[in-house]
Amino acid sequence: MPKVVFSIDQSKSMREQAVPGHNRWHPDIPAVATVRPGDEFRVECRDWTDCQVGNNDSANDVRDIDLTQVHMLSGPFAVEGAEPGDLLVVDILDIGPIPCPERTGDVPGQGWGYTGIFAKANGGGFLTDYYPDAYKAIWDFHGVQATSRHVPGVRYTGITHPGLFATAPSAELLTGWNRREKALIDTDAGRVPPLANPPEPNNAVTGTATGDLVERIAREGARTVPPREHGGNQDIKNFTRGARVFFPVYVTGANFSLGDLHFSQGDGEITFCGAIEMGGFIDLHVDLIKGGMAKYGVTTNPIFMPGNVEPRYSEFLSFVGISVDHDTDTNHYLDATVAYRRACLNAIEYLKTWGYSGEQAYLLLGSAPIEGRISGIVDIPNACCTLYLPTEIFDFDVRPNADGPVRKDRGRCAVTS
Amino acid sequence: MPKVVFSIDQSKSMREQAVPGHNRWHPDIPAVATVRPGDEFRVECRDWTDCQVGNNDSANDVRDIDLTQVHMLSGPFAVEGAEPGDLLVVDILDIGPIPCPERTGDVPGQGWGYTGIFAKANGGGFLTDYYPDAYKAIWDFHGVQATSRHVPGVRYTGITHPGLFATAPSAELLTGWNRREKALIDTDAGRVPPLANPPEPNNAVTGTATGDLVERIAREGARTVPPREHGGNQDIKNFTRGARVFFPVYVTGANFSLGDLHFSQGDGEITFCGAIEMGGFIDLHVDLIKGGMAKYGVTTNPIFMPGNVEPRYSEFLSFVGISVDHDTDTNHYLDATVAYRRACLNAIEYLKTWGYSGEQAYLLLGSAPIEGRISGIVDIPNACCTLYLPTEIFDFDVRPNADGPVRKDRGRCAVTS
Amino acid sequence: MPKVVFSIDQSKSMREQAVPGHNRWHPDIPAVATVRPGDEFRVECRDWTDCQVGNNDSANDVRDIDLTQVHMLSGPFAVEGAEPGDLLVVDILDIGPIPCPERTGDVPGQGWGYTGIFAKANGGGFLTDYYPDAYKAIWDFHGVQATSRHVPGVRYTGITHPGLFATAPSAELLTGWNRREKALIDTDAGRVPPLANPPEPNNAVTGTATGDLVERIAREGARTVPPREHGGNQDIKNFTRGARVFFPVYVTGANFSLGDLHFSQGDGEITFCGAIEMGGFIDLHVDLIKGGMAKYGVTTNPIFMPGNVEPRYSEFLSFVGISVDHDTDTNHYLDATVAYRRACLNAIEYLKTWGYSGEQAYLLLGSAPIEGRISGIVDIPNACCTLYLPTEIFDFDVRPNADGPVRKDRGRCAVTS
Amino acid sequence: MPKVVFSIDQSKSMREQAVPGHNRWHPDIPAVATVRPGDEFRVECRDWTDCQVGNNDSANDVRDIDLTQVHMLSGPFAVEGAEPGDLLVVDILDIGPIPCPERTGDVPGQGWGYTGIFAKANGGGFLTDYYPDAYKAIWDFHGVQATSRHVPGVRYTGITHPGLFATAPSAELLTGWNRREKALIDTDAGRVPPLANPPEPNNAVTGTATGDLVERIAREGARTVPPREHGGNQDIKNFTRGARVFFPVYVTGANFSLGDLHFSQGDGEITFCGAIEMGGFIDLHVDLIKGGMAKYGVTTNPIFMPGNVEPRYSEFLSFVGISVDHDTDTNHYLDATVAYRRACLNAIEYLKTWGYSGEQAYLLLGSAPIEGRISGIVDIPNACCTLYLPTEIFDFDVRPNADGPVRKDRGRCAVTS
Repeated sequence: MPKVVFSIDQSKSMREQAVPGHNRWHPDIPAVATVRPGDEFRVECRDWTDCQVGNNDSANDVRDIDLTQVHMLSGPFAVEGAEPGDLLVVDILDIGPIPCPERTGDVPGQGWGYTGIFAKANGGGFLTDYYPDAYKAIWDFHGVQATSRHVPGVRYTGITHPGLFATAPSAELLTGWNRREKALIDTDAGRVPPLANPPEPNNAVTGTATGDLVERIAREGARTVPPREHGGNQDIKNFTRGARVFFPVYVTGANFSLGDLHFSQGDGEITFCGAIEMGGFIDLHVDLIKGGMAKYGVTTNPIFMPGNVEPRYSEFLSFVGISVDHDTDTNHYLDATVAYRRACLNAIEYLKTWGYSGEQAYLLLGSAPIEGRISGIVDIPNACCTLYLPTEIFDFDVRPNADGPVRKDRGRCAVTS
Repeated sequence: MPKVVFSIDQSKSMREQAVPGHNRWHPDIPAVATVRPGDEFRVECRDWTDCQVGNNDSANDVRDIDLTQVHMLSGPFAVEGAEPGDLLVVDILDIGPIPCPERTGDVPGQGWGYTGIFAKANGGGFLTDYYPDAYKAIWDFHGVQATSRHVPGVRYTGITHPGLFATAPSAELLTGWNRREKALIDTDAGRVPPLANPPEPNNAVTGTATGDLVERIAREGARTVPPREHGGNQDIKNFTRGARVFFPVYVTGANFSLGDLHFSQGDGEITFCGAIEMGGFIDLHVDLIKGGMAKYGVTTNPIFMPGNVEPRYSEFLSFVGISVDHDTDTNHYLDATVAYRRACLNAIEYLKTWGYSGEQAYLLLGSAPIEGRISGIVDIPNACCTLYLPTEIFDFDVRPNADGPVRKDRGRCAVTS
Repeated sequence: MPKVVFSIDQSKSMREQAVPGHNRWHPDIPAVATVRPGDEFRVECRDWTDCQVGNNDSANDVRDIDLTQVHMLSGPFAVEGAEPGDLLVVDILDIGPIPCPERTGDVPGQGWGYTGIFAKANGGGFLTDYYPDAYKAIWDFHGVQATSRHVPGVRYTGITHPGLFATAPSAELLTGWNRREKALIDTDAGRVPPLANPPEPNNAVTGTATGDLVERIAREGARTVPPREHGGNQDIKNFTRGARVFFPVYVTGANFSLGDLHFSQGDGEITFCGAIEMGGFIDLHVDLIKGGMAKYGVTTNPIFMPGNVEPRYSEFLSFVGISVDHDTDTNHYLDATVAYRRACLNAIEYLKTWGYSGEQAYLLLGSAPIEGRISGIVDIPNACCTLYLPTEIFDFDVRPNADGPVRKDRGRCAVTS
Repeated sequence: MPKVVFSIDQSKSMREQAVPGHNRWHPDIPAVATVRPGDEFRVECRDWTDCQVGNNDSANDVRDIDLTQVHMLSGPFAVEGAEPGDLLVVDILDIGPIPCPERTGDVPGQGWGYTGIFAKANGGGFLTDYYPDAYKAIWDFHGVQATSRHVPGVRYTGITHPGLFATAPSAELLTGWNRREKALIDTDAGRVPPLANPPEPNNAVTGTATGDLVERIAREGARTVPPREHGGNQDIKNFTRGARVFFPVYVTGANFSLGDLHFSQGDGEITFCGAIEMGGFIDLHVDLIKGGMAKYGVTTNPIFMPGNVEPRYSEFLSFVGISVDHDTDTNHYLDATVAYRRACLNAIEYLKTWGYSGEQAYLLLGSAPIEGRISGIVDIPNACCTLYLPTEIFDFDVRPNADGPVRKDRGRCAVTS
């Protein structure tokens, strides 16, 4: 186990930690530690919501999550010698739930994690027009595998990864984000759920900042929800053990932060809180490519090489969606978002014929290692997206056959009261 | 080799074949053959353009392709006992280029194929605002692998598949398509390229229809470009050897057709004519699941199980894109199309640092077995898409390193004169 | 399709071909064609027995195979510029059964192939002490997959490859082989089956040799059964599409030959005629590494890179064997042969609990894409070998469960009369 | 983390633990804990030698290892309800090195492990006639990957597994082993290294046995080196995370034990101490199939399903060996042991051309995730074995090319003084 450069006392909130992390993006959040190119080290993480969700059979906590508190990040970490224009090279050496003496504790990551469908009134999700209420599934960890009492009949190996990882933005970049996102919000300011989240001083956690800086970060800091040029909440499931990522550096020291660990997640993380959420640890190795952004033509987003220890599933049942809203029989022009939504809805309808509720199927697709692919994006007017569901995660034969599906009682997920 | 139920004389156009296929969708195109559940048979195919492109170093032919002639399909084939509401089960037993005594002939599929970037004025492509002119690459087949004099330094194993495969629409479905797509077209009727293609009598090929039916099919028949409820031009690269597909049946006999064979294609087929296009053959096995649409909750699109003989690539260089138009610094709300476009542009910029032209890189990404994934689709406002480029297809080490890329002269693709 | 440098009229025996191949190894067999480094070309092949086996339900033909006639090879092919000490680089571009207009013909490779268990009195096999009689299974080809009426319940994708591929031996090497193998034979000269096969003039086919040379080749020529320094009958299943092999060159021109095409084979080819045997074609690309043997420390056997289009099976049921003869409770010292035999016997006993006969299971393990691994070879006194059987090839769930196996009638293989 | 049913204080020898394990097989070693079908629990393990090897640059400790002390096992664990004839179902949920606050400690498993070549005079190894002296390599752990200062230029992902896992033998089985192995020893009693190891009272550790039982176990107990009917030292590398193993049960309670954790190992574990040896932990789930041995035809060895999180390597350089002793030009009859030895020697000669010493290459092949396959086992007189070396573990391009290998100084492994 490498040295721990950021430790968490899981019995306390992020704000109460001896060295707290942060939940906003701002160039002036002070680095909590400095590492050198070539270093290997461990970072401990808090669950993204700062542990607002419990291991129980009610979805009330998911319904009531306070989103002004998210995402709780560990960092920032300064890298000696990093300058704007460099590429920060990060290797993910290992990652996992909270190591703890007991199998199960109160905190997500202590032997369990959760997947939530957010209510439309509180953030929503990819299918919020179809599933507007809050639901939850608790997943139990069995080494590298997970099962759920709320979604029986499946067991799968997680592709564990940090949902959120980024370098700090420069002041200029931050200003641009705020301007750009405000312009979008302004196109439909009262929308529920909103188009984007503007800076929100309430519940901002600003790391080790002190004095006036605290208030300024809270006022200016970008929210952590979207992925942006620096990385951010990319939710790329293949950013797992053995992965190497090349992040653009925008400030001296790079000042990277991370969090939102996922035991497992499907492509798209469609329920919004779609991964199996948890606290835990991540072991990293860092290096630099000096001047790497110009050398490799990187102007915006990171480049990465995916991890090579993903679970070896080889047989898939795949669902197709096209950019047609079949509910209204309306065509959307090469819209991959609509196409993937239809693929998800098609998968859910299929799973319902086996006895799952729509909510259970939705929770399953958010968290299991499904692949979401853009198959055709030029055949006007219809984009074509496909969803690959590994058949080996089911403890029954889920493939179509002449006899039809075996519909049985498959319990239910956690609901609100 | 199973019996041939549809044969092509590659020296003649589709219209001149003894039993011609068709290039429009219509329920009344007569079946050219009837097969039974359990049958195995071979279908021969013409290149999608009816061979408008030559094995040469000029992109003029791509620039001048007449799109009213596409896609040339083989079929329809009736399946004994198929009725609306069934699922047609299709196994792809084998698929390949035109078997021919000589290594290279004049027709695409005779030892070679092509990838084209369409000009913005004639159809365009996914990056048409960045690459508005026509370009071409010729690929030489070496068994299951391909190389190109126009994109040197790469060699890859194709995931060969039919770009287009579908059952016939019912009259009602067809009427709905025409209405739905007209509504879209009407939102911006003069757009170049157009939002969608309405029925086009000119150059319609209507199979073995005779008399008034010919004119009616030509007038009413839906164009073959988009994927739709029945399958269609889905361009799913994993619909390859060993794949099993479950198609909805809309008319008695199912009356399925297919064509647009691709030696290889990347997810998205981003150059529009992005695959390695060719004529060839496909061997099929068919079966039925009676009443399968209701049994399995299939209301619209096909379900499939991908083939299990895809090339075994394991190391990828991956590019991230988010739903921001960085050219104008504009946010798009959870728009996976924009996000994937940015991932493509990022990959192209990277490849340019090694000496490829942007057009070469674009042609490469359209045809090589890249994967395009929807990684995050709920993190407002930015969708996150990723493009996985297998590193093993390059004959040099394409991964980033501290020394920077080795830029060298990598020739050029075919251009217009 | 590349140019054919060796063509077969499958209605005639190898001896009757316009340009016949050969069935013995000798440096003086004349080359039938010359190719150049960089060339791509096709070679057609006869089934290894010269078509002594038929598509029927009797194993009499397997029982009566005349082994003095095997293996019928295509070649030799001279490579321009090849000299002793070079490495001949061979790429397998494509390989397959006999292309033929009809689905099924009389010749193995025309839509079907066979697997045989040889009788102990006529060659035997790996388990000949347990299965001393002759048996046969006919396999039907469905594109890249195979099924058998003699082994129902399985369907698998073949890893198609040439069982036999080699450069010509030098005169010195040939002399050494004959001396070395005679020494072994002499240790138990009357053994049934024999320890090795000495040169056998009877039924020798000597290519285009004429005059006295014919008799000399027949008298001196090494038999083709074993693998040797030059390659030979290696039966490496992963020598498939996309593979690259580096052969030592022992004579000017390299003079390589090949044959014994297998539609599919398990590691070990345990029934002796264990693969799915067939005639067919193979497309090759050749090149040279001048002085490669010394450069790369190659003194004896070939080096190769396996093909990258093997079927993607990911779940296996694996059987362990150790170097103990449990029938007599006798320990053998680190004997991997005994260990693998026990693993095979263990797998057969397992499959018998599901209703297969031992002979059916033996035929299955010889031909399906199983992996045979040497797991432990140093833990005195017991070697440990393991056999990996892909579970996805069965149309039922073959994994152990608490309820026990579902034993049912699974027909029978072809037997002798 | 599941409950720990066997804990190790790594600062103490196995004998000194509060609840010690054992290093001999005997039915009367008392169970240290009882678990129930369905339980999940953790077992901690000591390095197989009880920590006789240090993290330094001398191979003296490997040379001087006292083999009477091995293998230090954790257990036995009784399973409630297990009876002779059952199958014990074991799932490996997780496995890893010693979790410890500091990156590196004194004990193998605390951030590092070792691979040793044993001297011929002290156990030997697979190539002991070629490499008769002791050598060592220290490997540093980087999450799931390993590197070595003694074998620079490689970095690979471990397939972590327990080398040794077994149920307790019945008294009858134990008696049979001792008789069977004595018979082998007696065939060449003075051989160095010995053919097998008889019971050895010296340094026997007998768990929690007391009184006369201690002496009896020490006198009768079978040594732990070989794999046997109950499992034992099988050294199957694929017995990793996600694996499920079905062990025969020979005594009431099954009484299974395990140890000899390997961070990584190649097929064959050819240097004897060929894996990367370490202490650590393993998390298990157990279940029973009542009467499973008869149900599934299991009379001797375990059956297993390999883990599904092995590193995803896809490109291999493969070496062939046949059952000929080329040093003496002697044929061995279908001897897979000789064939695999030649494949190993061929691989070593190849690696030497790049600048590695033979000892370094030998250490590499013992510990890296290579595959060893039995390719042909029926082609008299020569068995054919193949060794698959993943090319992606090298930080240079190790494939043959026309220019020849790049020979450079690659340091040296630890040697004796």
